Amino acid sequence: MMNSIYKYTFGTPEEHTPFKLTGQRIDGDAGGLPACEAPFGAEAITFSVNARGTTLNIPAAPGEQFFGLGLQLKSVAQRGKKKVLRVNSDPTLDLGDSHAPVPFYLSTAGYGVLIDTARYTTFQFASHVKQASAEQRKESADNTDDLYAARALSGTTHVLVDIPAAKGVDVYVFAGPTMADALKRYNMFSGGGVLPPMWGLGIWYRTWVYSTQDAVREQAKSIRADRLPCDVFGLEPGWQTRAYSCSYVWNREKYPDIEQVIEELRAQGYHLNLWEHLYMHPECPIYGEQEPYAGDYKVWGGLVPDLSVPEAAKSFRDYHKTALIEKGISGFKLDECDNSDFIGHPWSYPEASQFPSGMDGEQMHSMMGMLSQQAMMPVYEELNQRTYNCVRSSGAYAAPMPYVLYSDLYSLSDFIRGVVTAGFSGLLWCPEVRQSGDEEDLIRRLQTVVLSPLAMINNWMVPHPAWKQFDTEKNKEGDFSGCEGVVDRVRPVLELRMKLLPYLYNAFNSYRKCGLPPFRSLAVDYTGDANTHTIDDQYMVGDAMMYAPMLPGKTSREVYLPAGKWHNFFTGETYEGATKRTFEAAVADILLFVRDGSLIPTAKPVTHVTPDTVFEMEVRRFGGGRLTCTLTEDDGESFDFLKGEQNIITLTSEEDGRLTLTREGGYDGVRYVF
Amino acid sequence: MMNSIYKYTFGTPEEHTPFKLTGQRIDGDAGGLPACEAPFGAEAITFSVNARGTTLNIPAAPGEQFFGLGLQLKSVAQRGKKKVLRVNSDPTLDLGDSHAPVPFYLSTAGYGVLIDTARYTTFQFASHVKQASAEQRKESADNTDDLYAARALSGTTHVLVDIPAAKGVDVYVFAGPTMADALKRYNMFSGGGVLPPMWGLGIWYRTWVYSTQDAVREQAKSIRADRLPCDVFGLEPGWQTRAYSCSYVWNREKYPDIEQVIEELRAQGYHLNLWEHLYMHPECPIYGEQEPYAGDYKVWGGLVPDLSVPEAAKSFRDYHKTALIEKGISGFKLDECDNSDFIGHPWSYPEASQFPSGMDGEQMHSMMGMLSQQAMMPVYEELNQRTYNCVRSSGAYAAPMPYVLYSDLYSLSDFIRGVVTAGFSGLLWCPEVRQSGDEEDLIRRLQTVVLSPLAMINNWMVPHPAWKQFDTEKNKEGDFSGCEGVVDRVRPVLELRMKLLPYLYNAFNSYRKCGLPPFRSLAVDYTGDANTHTIDDQYMVGDAMMYAPMLPGKTSREVYLPAGKWHNFFTGETYEGATKRTFEAAVADILLFVRDGSLIPTAKPVTHVTPDTVFEMEVRRFGGGRLTCTLTEDDGESFDFLKGEQNIITLTSEEDGRLTLTREGGYDGVRYVF
Repeated sequence: MMNSIYKYTFGTPEEHTPFKLTGQRIDGDAGGLPACEAPFGAEAITFSVNARGTTLNIPAAPGEQFFGLGLQLKSVAQRGKKKVLRVNSDPTLDLGDSHAPVPFYLSTAGYGVLIDTARYTTFQFASHVKQASAEQRKESADNTDDLYAARALSGTTHVLVDIPAAKGVDVYVFAGPTMADALKRYNMFSGGGVLPPMWGLGIWYRTWVYSTQDAVREQAKSIRADRLPCDVFGLEPGWQTRAYSCSYVWNREKYPDIEQVIEELRAQGYHLNLWEHLYMHPECPIYGEQEPYAGDYKVWGGLVPDLSVPEAAKSFRDYHKTALIEKGISGFKLDECDNSDFIGHPWSYPEASQFPSGMDGEQMHSMMGMLSQQAMMPVYEELNQRTYNCVRSSGAYAAPMPYVLYSDLYSLSDFIRGVVTAGFSGLLWCPEVRQSGDEEDLIRRLQTVVLSPLAMINNWMVPHPAWKQFDTEKNKEGDFSGCEGVVDRVRPVLELRMKLLPYLYNAFNSYRKCGLPPFRSLAVDYTGDANTHTIDDQYMVGDAMMYAPMLPGKTSREVYLPAGKWHNFFTGETYEGATKRTFEAAVADILLFVRDGSLIPTAKPVTHVTPDTVFEMEVRRFGGGRLTCTLTEDDGESFDFLKGEQNIITLTSEEDGRLTLTREGGYDGVRYVF
Repeated sequence: MMNSIYKYTFGTPEEHTPFKLTGQRIDGDAGGLPACEAPFGAEAITFSVNARGTTLNIPAAPGEQFFGLGLQLKSVAQRGKKKVLRVNSDPTLDLGDSHAPVPFYLSTAGYGVLIDTARYTTFQFASHVKQASAEQRKESADNTDDLYAARALSGTTHVLVDIPAAKGVDVYVFAGPTMADALKRYNMFSGGGVLPPMWGLGIWYRTWVYSTQDAVREQAKSIRADRLPCDVFGLEPGWQTRAYSCSYVWNREKYPDIEQVIEELRAQGYHLNLWEHLYMHPECPIYGEQEPYAGDYKVWGGLVPDLSVPEAAKSFRDYHKTALIEKGISGFKLDECDNSDFIGHPWSYPEASQFPSGMDGEQMHSMMGMLSQQAMMPVYEELNQRTYNCVRSSGAYAAPMPYVLYSDLYSLSDFIRGVVTAGFSGLLWCPEVRQSGDEEDLIRRLQTVVLSPLAMINNWMVPHPAWKQFDTEKNKEGDFSGCEGVVDRVRPVLELRMKLLPYLYNAFNSYRKCGLPPFRSLAVDYTGDANTHTIDDQYMVGDAMMYAPMLPGKTSREVYLPAGKWHNFFTGETYEGATKRTFEAAVADILLFVRDGSLIPTAKPVTHVTPDTVFEMEVRRFGGGRLTCTLTEDDGESFDFLKGEQNIITLTSEEDGRLTLTREGGYDGVRYVF
């Protein structure tokens, strides 16, 4: 094709695929990467079609490791595994089930492969041996101990891709030469990474599901009174007259003066975000418009829209624009667009459902998250207003979407692993903080969420913030005893986010311009170091930093430091890399490391970001000699940067600490002072 | 069709289905049931075909409950659920995954439905609402509490059956009028239930995986020295030269004098059972014969036979006959014929595999257990020698097969639930006892396994029996300290099995003659009592008894007693039914209840059964008036009963205890004395 992306067509591909429905954003920009040969040609892929669907065998070399398949909460490295990409909101096991499966994988050999299908496709990564192959083990085990020991010796023939129903498929191969290059090409092919509004990178707070307008007013004030940073205030299901299924209409009993409340919140610097899902109640004002485009099954009595139909997408978009966004709403939390049918109490539409576009339920489950994101995009472009949202499902080609995945699951180690894996497939993931058993749990979770794509505290289960009361019953009674002083220990954690906000904003701008995810596995940066391939509890933050989260109950942990020197971000202490080290970390301590030779710009924390915010910056040196870094400067909330109204600031720090600054670009404001 | 079984054909059914491959045993015998109308005609079923496969909507009425789908370890009642029948050796969640999924369900409305497919079919039991339906809830929830509360109000339109790949399907509907009748018809249609050899109903003991012939000799002697009942002695993988994959050839280093050892064991009254799986190592003597019929993927370096090909089945059967069965082996434990690919470390063949018969891997996974059982049957018929075996996968039409399912899983409550659910689909299930943390755990597990289809103690992990030492490390060192006297508390539990052996043998003969499973849910006997529908921790044992297992750590439990009077089997204490009652039970106590009006024959326990064994019987009365029961009398191990060499003994006990006996049949021996 172009940009060292190779398209191979096998048989007759299906009509409804990720590329055809949501993937046509390619603009010829390869993020500045040089051309590269394909790792293999179409002839190296074995293709067959039978009653079950389409099967591909794609080359795989011994020792090659594989990553990707979208958000995978249970494992990072995929070699030897079999994964079925079922859309599932509760992926309890390491079987491929995911809120956001993506039929895309990366290889340490320096390429990526996208199977353009919306089917629940099986991937087997060198997990099996063909009968004719000579690669079988020489000896067989005669007992289970030997057997288990031998499991590591899995076959190495190929990646088997088993696509139900399809009679053919398009395969997109993204060349390297490095794995990072292949990932960048994939993200640029998707349209480049998203640049969120600056406020989206601030702190998010979601309020109790039973809140009324007075409770909302009180909490918004209390956050400001506590001098806690917060940019986004979110309302949960109760804001509507109908929620399961949705009406998208304000509940005037709970929110009689919502217009005024919105004004008050915005005056305090909050952006408002509303919970919703796609299932529309008969009371929903666009129910009649959507009915001709609905699927043949109901969910919670509501219709299931087919947002692949332009008329349905337009109706959905226009309603949101006029009824909500133009009235002061900045974004949404799009719940339940995945599939909760694999958890024992199914509520979603069957895979056998039929939709007016000709899609079936299986395809719709795979595509619904991306279709709903895509449906909304024109609103924000029309209003020249960037947005940042939460969503519970996504898919292929998601990089440019201002949507961050979240989950009702809550294992912190799984949530951390989610940050590691999401970055392999153009996804963003939020390890949100909800209930906490104690202060340590709260602090540890907050430390991770402020070093993630979206810093959300989701307080939907209780009326008062967790730092006022951990105990759910006491919280509901307004009894804050036993939690004295917690807010003062929470504040510095939230302020870390605000300190790093300019750094993170710049990292997202790199994502936009060259496709490098702001949060990613160490394996992307250190592909040649096999030690990094299986690390599921550390990740890169921007270009220069690496984070090793602490779990509650631990006072120390092992951290793998790749080759080179590393510095503790807080203390400046220096360590030699290419080794594992054990670090002590008290509850307040965060294991954030800086690559040697980095210049890190930090801001004096603000509570929230406006277009007028000027960040008071400090620049910290990690290593000797001349050090440089960049910052991205624009209005932080419109799309004017697309017209050149954005500056790239290059900071240079000499060995003696002398700082120089160059600005390039067409933005005429000043966001940073040094 | 016949016998009130109705066959509806939709579209073009597939070539490889359970009925076509393993289901053609129907002989016109409906077990004496009267004719009955179909619950619905073909026209009541909606049928459609598209790229994904075949979809059926089958009627379901409000309030109707559904059971079945084969061995389901996680749930009994299926209404409101979505189940995908994937063959999976580790069904961690309640999603339909099973060692032995069966596309058959029973309804409390008094009928059964078999979808004749070997595909991983989805069943949704009234779990969803069609868009056009008026049955949606009147109100929607506006918060999650209401939502969760409303989940019980699932839609009631139909059973959705979603069959991948198929362009049509045969549906068999088994009429009632009662659910028990429908179940009987299904089992009789399968060929009637199995009558195992009497020795198969004794105690089974499997020895350490690393055993040598001397260790085997020592353990066999020690069991007899401890005066413990044991009929079957099983060897685990180590008996072969190659196990993963298999050679089926004795390892002469470990077993140099195996012929003599077999003779010694048989002289002590043991039957020998050998572990194996179907994956054949190149050293396997029939490897060359099987190669033309093998699938295109290897498993553990071994070939995967296609036992649907008559030549392959014959080669497999003939080798087992001459090399093993004729040398004194009584049966096998057929491991890993299911699919362990959904547990994170796949080893099995892909669903996309191809087999010479034209079957693919998905179909083969569904059929492999039944195909391998079927392949072996002629050997035993030729030798006029009944058998009883263990198997890790089974399927539709399994009732006549002398195979009992088992698992590497080990939750006792799941194992108990397995006994409840297996009986809905013509399956037998063994809640085997392996390791135990302490004496209580061992005793509680033994209590359940002796009241199950196969009383197996699977000691494969340690060199000495669990009653000699629970602690694995100590066991391996031969240190028996801390376990003094355990054997004397284990003995009465095992002896209960031997006391009930004639009763159980008779219950199996009913299974053979009328299709009523010997172990089954209370819902089969008390379908009209909705309280029984969800009971997953009690089950019927034969015609007259009901067992309520105790879990370790509990000193009492609630038991539901259906309407009528019930008696404690051990104490004779009487309780009024139609209610839940709490019963205390010390570790040695077993909550085994007898239906009022029952006469229970018990035997003086023997350690093992031979054709010459004469059981010294006692008859116990539970209730007043004239009571009767039957016993089945034959040689207990040949197929001569099929030629009429079997007696049915009817025992009548008058109120005053006077016992009379009638014998009908052509067997001329005497097995029971009173």
